Amino acid sequence: MRYAYVQPFVDSAQRILAEAVPGRIVAGDLRLSSAALPSRGVTAIVGVTGEGEGRVLFDMDRETALRIASAMNGEPFHELDQLAKDTLCELAGMMTGKAVSALNDGGHRLRVTPPTLFTGENVSISGGELEALVVPLETPFGEIAVNVAIATC
Amino acid sequence: MRYAYVQPFVDSAQRILAEAVPGRIVAGDLRLSSAALPSRGVTAIVGVTGEGEGRVLFDMDRETALRIASAMNGEPFHELDQLAKDTLCELAGMMTGKAVSALNDGGHRLRVTPPTLFTGENVSISGGELEALVVPLETPFGEIAVNVAIATC
Repeated sequence: MRYAYVQPFVDSAQRILAEAVPGRIVAGDLRLSSAALPSRGVTAIVGVTGEGEGRVLFDMDRETALRIASAMNGEPFHELDQLAKDTLCELAGMMTGKAVSALNDGGHRLRVTPPTLFTGENVSISGGELEALVVPLETPFGEIAVNVAIATC
Repeated sequence: MRYAYVQPFVDSAQRILAEAVPGRIVAGDLRLSSAALPSRGVTAIVGVTGEGEGRVLFDMDRETALRIASAMNGEPFHELDQLAKDTLCELAGMMTGKAVSALNDGGHRLRVTPPTLFTGENVSISGGELEALVVPLETPFGEIAVNVAIATC
């Protein structure tokens, strides 16, 4: 996987989050992710096609997801109902949309799918042989892991 | 969503399954799927971009997944280890690859991502406002639901 694909997704997520919720968003260190990884409970997945193929995950625990949906809607959520899920899908869509615009403005040719949100218990995510890189984003509401696995075609 | 996108995914899944595992594969009736749907436990997701955007899900319960992985590998699987998961990803990749080839040969312009597999308990899948159509495929090993949500761009 090309490292060049990762940073724009992290930068865009950081910027969109900084606009969407109050407080400072701090990016942690980049690390390799194993082929099969456990979900924290709430995962938005966005598919990527074009000159590279793969997917981007935004992974967080349930409490973080509830706090972010609450902050974005200006009302407290105590369960992940449809509005909370739609809010998190919208957030993931904004983050990936901004990243792909930046990448394509820089000469890349990538397209993304709309986000799909998976929630559950003991969820494991597996993606064949795709190598993934992950950067944690620390927010005042909890951590969101940005996990990027894009192979050059 | 255009109905024209659905049938090729169902036909290809049926044909690939008929080659991959013994016994008859019977397609059930098409029905609308709700925006948020429960997973049966094992879900492969493939993203779609191009003239239409969305995702295709292949959803089955754990026992069906284990039986299919066992039949495809010629050895019994008792847990969803990495080889079993890779087998199911490969199956999903073949099913969507064949479908998109057929669609594009017919004049459509679609691309698909590699599959990602989600397994877990009480998993719920939500995709914003995408309308989905689902066809169950009855196999000797259990049912696989082919769930297609592709919006025309």
